[in-house]
Amino acid sequence: MSRRVRSGRVLGAVPQRAFGQVPLGIAPVEVISADQVEAIHQAALKLLAGTGMKVLSAEARGMFAGAGAEVAGEMVRLEAGLVGDLLASVPGAFTLAARNPAKNLRFGGRNMVFASVGGPAYVMDIDGGRRDGTYAEMCDFLRVIQTLNVVQQEGGGPFEPMDLPANTRHLDIYLAQITLLDKSWQTQTLGLARTMDGIEMAAIMFGCSPDSLPVSLLGIINTNSPLQLDIPMAEGLIAMARHGQVNVITPFTLAGAMAPVSIAGALVLQHAEAMAGICLTQIVKQGVPVMYGGFTSNVDMRSGAPAFGTPEYAKAAQASGQLARRIGVPFRSSNVTAANAVDAQAAYESQMALWGAITGGVHLIEHAAGWMHGGLTASYEKLILDAEMLQMMQAWMEPLATDDAALGLEAIAEAGPGGHFFGTAQTMGSYETAFHAPMLSNWDNYPTWLEKGAEEAPRRANRVWKELLAGYEEPKLDEAVVEALEEYVAKRKAEGGAPMN
Amino acid sequence: MSRRVRSGRVLGAVPQRAFGQVPLGIAPVEVISADQVEAIHQAALKLLAGTGMKVLSAEARGMFAGAGAEVAGEMVRLEAGLVGDLLASVPGAFTLAARNPAKNLRFGGRNMVFASVGGPAYVMDIDGGRRDGTYAEMCDFLRVIQTLNVVQQEGGGPFEPMDLPANTRHLDIYLAQITLLDKSWQTQTLGLARTMDGIEMAAIMFGCSPDSLPVSLLGIINTNSPLQLDIPMAEGLIAMARHGQVNVITPFTLAGAMAPVSIAGALVLQHAEAMAGICLTQIVKQGVPVMYGGFTSNVDMRSGAPAFGTPEYAKAAQASGQLARRIGVPFRSSNVTAANAVDAQAAYESQMALWGAITGGVHLIEHAAGWMHGGLTASYEKLILDAEMLQMMQAWMEPLATDDAALGLEAIAEAGPGGHFFGTAQTMGSYETAFHAPMLSNWDNYPTWLEKGAEEAPRRANRVWKELLAGYEEPKLDEAVVEALEEYVAKRKAEGGAPMN
Repeated sequence: MSRRVRSGRVLGAVPQRAFGQVPLGIAPVEVISADQVEAIHQAALKLLAGTGMKVLSAEARGMFAGAGAEVAGEMVRLEAGLVGDLLASVPGAFTLAARNPAKNLRFGGRNMVFASVGGPAYVMDIDGGRRDGTYAEMCDFLRVIQTLNVVQQEGGGPFEPMDLPANTRHLDIYLAQITLLDKSWQTQTLGLARTMDGIEMAAIMFGCSPDSLPVSLLGIINTNSPLQLDIPMAEGLIAMARHGQVNVITPFTLAGAMAPVSIAGALVLQHAEAMAGICLTQIVKQGVPVMYGGFTSNVDMRSGAPAFGTPEYAKAAQASGQLARRIGVPFRSSNVTAANAVDAQAAYESQMALWGAITGGVHLIEHAAGWMHGGLTASYEKLILDAEMLQMMQAWMEPLATDDAALGLEAIAEAGPGGHFFGTAQTMGSYETAFHAPMLSNWDNYPTWLEKGAEEAPRRANRVWKELLAGYEEPKLDEAVVEALEEYVAKRKAEGGAPMN
Repeated sequence: MSRRVRSGRVLGAVPQRAFGQVPLGIAPVEVISADQVEAIHQAALKLLAGTGMKVLSAEARGMFAGAGAEVAGEMVRLEAGLVGDLLASVPGAFTLAARNPAKNLRFGGRNMVFASVGGPAYVMDIDGGRRDGTYAEMCDFLRVIQTLNVVQQEGGGPFEPMDLPANTRHLDIYLAQITLLDKSWQTQTLGLARTMDGIEMAAIMFGCSPDSLPVSLLGIINTNSPLQLDIPMAEGLIAMARHGQVNVITPFTLAGAMAPVSIAGALVLQHAEAMAGICLTQIVKQGVPVMYGGFTSNVDMRSGAPAFGTPEYAKAAQASGQLARRIGVPFRSSNVTAANAVDAQAAYESQMALWGAITGGVHLIEHAAGWMHGGLTASYEKLILDAEMLQMMQAWMEPLATDDAALGLEAIAEAGPGGHFFGTAQTMGSYETAFHAPMLSNWDNYPTWLEKGAEEAPRRANRVWKELLAGYEEPKLDEAVVEALEEYVAKRKAEGGAPMN
């Protein structure tokens, strides 16, 4: 695959920006006042000190008790002072190592990371519709993710390979993530075994011991809203923190279902649960990097169905950014939609989510590319739609040049009143790189578009991912490392893999 | 048509918010620094004082000269001091009267107005494709606009009724705007005759003389970029300002074509041309309301085709807001796309434009609903897609409640750890109005959606506009006023209408 890189843009069959993070250029939007932030924060602290969290893991309860929390039965209550002390050691920013050091990622400050879809049950494309996925197809999906520069991190397995046994599937997924990608990948944190397998295999990848693994793994910890932390998630959290890896504590607070029917109420619950989880990471290992996950959305009040990319979602994302900054913890949000097709709804719901997250000062957008059906499905065409929208957001974030050449007084004088700029020296000189070059948008005029076959966005996206997949080149890994990984997988399969939770 | 209004939402067959403006709740985004704003402003002033504007109208040149500008041939040069003096009298905010006073609109400050598509050559729906429009169909399009609460202003004729003669068409359009709508409508400003016809007919509508017409008409004035103001636009501008009506001075600065190939350069040109036009309105009538129009986009560098809703467009919209605030003039932007179908591209390009405009502190979004094909086509389904997105933006702008009930500590205690909120008193009490209810989005799960016919967004939009059209009720106007309007139209048609420019 021959590609020229010019001015940060890769020129090839599919126009792409070069791999790289673009920092947010604006001050994050403040959608609620400082007083409102404080009201939510104080209500959450009151909840943690009063009702408390139901912690199903005895190990986690023991740790909370050891740190000074009040433990009664399964309930853990945390006083505001203790919460404040524990939050104080959370790093405001950190770097995550990738297999290819050129793809290391910076989280925090104005830096953000776009991660691909993680966790759906199904896969979908417009050729075959929605279906159970296979391991072979999951590997193809990972290959497309590897080719998409704007997707800076893999999101933890794009969908379940249903042709593999559930208790050892994670081992095959890790192997694929490590061998097919040279970018950073997320690990699975459901229970101790899956978590340790990720840590062990990442250590083999880096040629180190699990205890000296650099900060390189990121895993999602979901609390069971309202106010509950279950055993598998607690095990994952503790193992990750113990090994210096990054937990992303993400309550799933759906207003009207698992959370109050008001966005503020859902945020109070989210903030309380996130703080509880974040505190636990600091009890396990003071100073370990951890993230604040915001996943507040709302149900459709007519049907009870979850809705995503709503106005409430965007507002909650921005408010979540404010709450995360209030406690100094890097902030995770998501790119979400409940749409059933890669149509206008999929685009506007995702745009609402992206603008909410990005103007809200996000540091990680999970599910940034490929998430459909409220998280049930990974879609090839949605992956391309999202990659295009992410490229556009990156281009939007790039600073506007206002040097003398950019101000263009000479070019304007050259064109003159009523003149045109096609032929000016400035135009000729920046012909190929002046503006965002889309991978999905079609800007033909209508008659030309009709003549070329009237392809709408999903059909074009279908062509793009196939072109990318065809151009995929495997980033070669040392044969000895591959063998060691395969041995590890074989050994763990022989042992029976992970217990089923 | 029976409709219940509850908590600001109209409940009926098509879920809609009630008519009303929602102010921007956040501080406008600053996408460029104060220094950069100043660099662009100073470069524009330098351009006006140096190269100057080519003004083809002798009347306008005379007015500029009378105010102290340097006029040489067709060129008009304005010193920075003079520009500053003239800009000083522009009102920062104003109210525009509608036929129905409940639909009067406020421009400026944090208030914004959404206007429908204006000016396309073609009309389109998914039943008949793109075609020349007729007067009957244009009236139907206006009827749908009347039913859409979130479209607060009609945008100046949704498309050309090609079955009517070009020289008198504007009279029939005005008659339709006045009789079919009770919301405010935009007038045509191409030449003196069309402009005066709009003013005369608005005066008949309000039962006053043209000289005592309240601030009620808004017209778009396009400069011919670069740096040119033609005779018909100058005539329109002067007549509008003289009668106290609102000119929206909008250079069409397409970077790489009619403007330099850099966004900053296009903004310098836009800012210079807008200031020149704004100054002329203040020369005609000191203190007359006027708006700063930003319409900077870029061409596709591969084909030269205009592109809309690009990252550059969004950034330029936000920077334009900063430039307009720099000179204290209310700001107009647009909702634009170059997409050929009402697909994901149409949605994401429009979303980029809407987020750019709204976070940029816009006061008027022209073409907020229905604009397609880079402005060549008015689309029925795009109208509904846009109305949905505008409703979402309004819902996003609504303040987040953080009173005790909203914080939900009682509801959380009632549900308890691991419980659910479907049945809590709070949920039951705000069942119907807690969250945005969409008019276009479908939140069914995938199997249900398939079973119901797998309708994608354009098909659903098609049903929505037909339902709205079927439910349209004409807002009755006094018979005597209708007769007077019809007499005026007949008289002007007999006189030959407007000269062809």
